[in-house]
Formats: sequence, structure tokens, C-alpha cells
Amino acid sequence: MSIILEPIGVIHTPFKAKDGMPIQSAGAKGVKGHIVLREELIPGLTDLDGFSHIIMIYHFHKSTGFELLTTPFLDNKQHGVFATRAPSRPNQLGISVVRLLKIEKNIIHIENVDMLDETPLLDIKPYIPDFDVHNTEKNGWFENNSDNLNETRSDKRFE
Amino acid sequence: MSIILEPIGVIHTPFKAKDGMPIQSAGAKGVKGHIVLREELIPGLTDLDGFSHIIMIYHFHKSTGFELLTTPFLDNKQHGVFATRAPSRPNQLGISVVRLLKIEKNIIHIENVDMLDETPLLDIKPYIPDFDVHNTEKNGWFENNSDNLNETRSDKRFE
Repeated sequence: MSIILEPIGVIHTPFKAKDGMPIQSAGAKGVKGHIVLREELIPGLTDLDGFSHIIMIYHFHKSTGFELLTTPFLDNKQHGVFATRAPSRPNQLGISVVRLLKIEKNIIHIENVDMLDETPLLDIKPYIPDFDVHNTEKNGWFENNSDNLNETRSDKRFE
Repeated sequence: MSIILEPIGVIHTPFKAKDGMPIQSAGAKGVKGHIVLREELIPGLTDLDGFSHIIMIYHFHKSTGFELLTTPFLDNKQHGVFATRAPSRPNQLGISVVRLLKIEKNIIHIENVDMLDETPLLDIKPYIPDFDVHNTEKNGWFENNSDNLNETRSDKRFE
């Protein structure tokens, strides 16, 4: 039972290659990009500019195939792919929360982008803390590796 | 340029019809469900049980078509569909954060489910506060309607 999706637009970012990309938007603070939405969908953006943050769902278009066990960038041990945010995963769906800067017709200016240039966009939703903020008790393998995220943010890859 | 997805499993919940469903997992506290994952994907769950919360991406399989302007359940005014979480949207993708209770082979027991029974599941990711919690300055039309979420939670639809 296949599901067929049509991109609603394209994401443009400074990242032309998979090497040297930020690890999540937490590692992409201040990096700007923009979405080019299909023009016929412009009415769907009405009132979106009232929100400071949006959720983007997109397709990891440069990922081909997947491994069920994978070693994420932030760890040196293998984990199940569903216990990671690795792009090489079944259905290759990615999500990111970015800051919404400005909307001009079908151009949506965003900040804290962590995806490849030319990434096909599948959906935009408003980020709503009442829905999207959760208190976790357990953060799995990430718990002992969050320091790596900070190191990643402070390395020289964006210079 | 279409993108073809294959569900990784099926979500089972107490909600057999679109009427009377909770509004987001915030309105579904304590409601239990389970995922039946495709058996060949079981290795992909390795170490997922270290996380207390998971993100599910799924297909609103009962939504047909969409309106670019829509009146969300929590408001009485129209907004652009991308400024809402309405299921009738381009590509009909839904996301929910649920509590992970237990994994038994390919059965994943979850809590705070807000989706229809038999919903096709497209991805599972760990919910990681360092990635997924954001401080918003503006919450758009939702700002003046969050009381409705509370009302919704306390009505009689789950009795």
C-alpha cells in the first residue's frame, strides 16, 4: 500500500554537500535559508506569520537506501535506525523546527536551517509549545553524548 | 517529482472514527495504543527503549483532498492550512509525540495517542529535548485559543 507525495516546495540552504553539515537545527543557529513554495499553495500560508517557529517535514533526497543498525554522528556505537535521527532511514523523512523570519508571496525566509540545499519540502506546520514540548525522563544513548552536540556547534566547519 | 513511501507499520488506537477524537496528544493523556511494525524492521528498534518519548510521522489515511483555507477545531476563524495542524492538508502527513511504554518484538506499546485506528506509520524518531524543545515568542492564532484545548480535554468525549 504505497503512499505517493508531491513536494509543496523546495528548501534552499547554504549546504551544497552532505559533508560538514550541522547536527540538527541546534547546531545551525543563525544559518539562514528560504523555502520556495509552489505558487498555487500561497493561500495556505495565511496567518503563518503569526508564529515564530515552524515545523518542516521534508525528504532526505540524497539518501539512498538504509541500514537498520547505524552509528549516528553523535556517538561511536551502533543503534537501531529508529533510535536515531539519521537521514538514511526507511522513507527518508526528516523534520526540523526553524525560526520563521518573513514571508514574501511564495518565499518563506527561515533561520537555523540544517538541511541540504534543494531539499524537497513536504509539509509546514506551526510549532506550538502546548503540543510540541514534552518533559522526558529518559533520553537513551543521547544522554551521554549531548556534549558532542556542543562540540559540533563550536567546530570550524561553518567558517 | 513524486516521492513514494511504504508504511513501516500500522498504529492501533481506540479511535475508530474521525468524530470525537482528541486534539493533539495534549488532549489524549493516558490513552493507550500500539504500533505493529513490519517484522523485518525489528533490528531498527534497537536501543529505542532507552527513550521515554518518540516522534511518530504518519499518514492521515482518512483525509481526502484539502482546502488551503481551513477553520481549525480550536478556533472559529479561517487560517491557511499550513498555519494549522488540520489533517486535511497537502500530503496528509501527521506528527505526534507519544510516550513509549514497552517494546515486545515488533509491538510497540505507546501512550497519549491521538490518531485514528489503523493509521499507516511512516517513521519513528526519538524525541530529544535538545533538538525538539524551542522557545517561541509568537504562537499566532493559537495564543488566544489555548483555553479551548483545556476545554477540549475536559469534555465528555472519552467517557
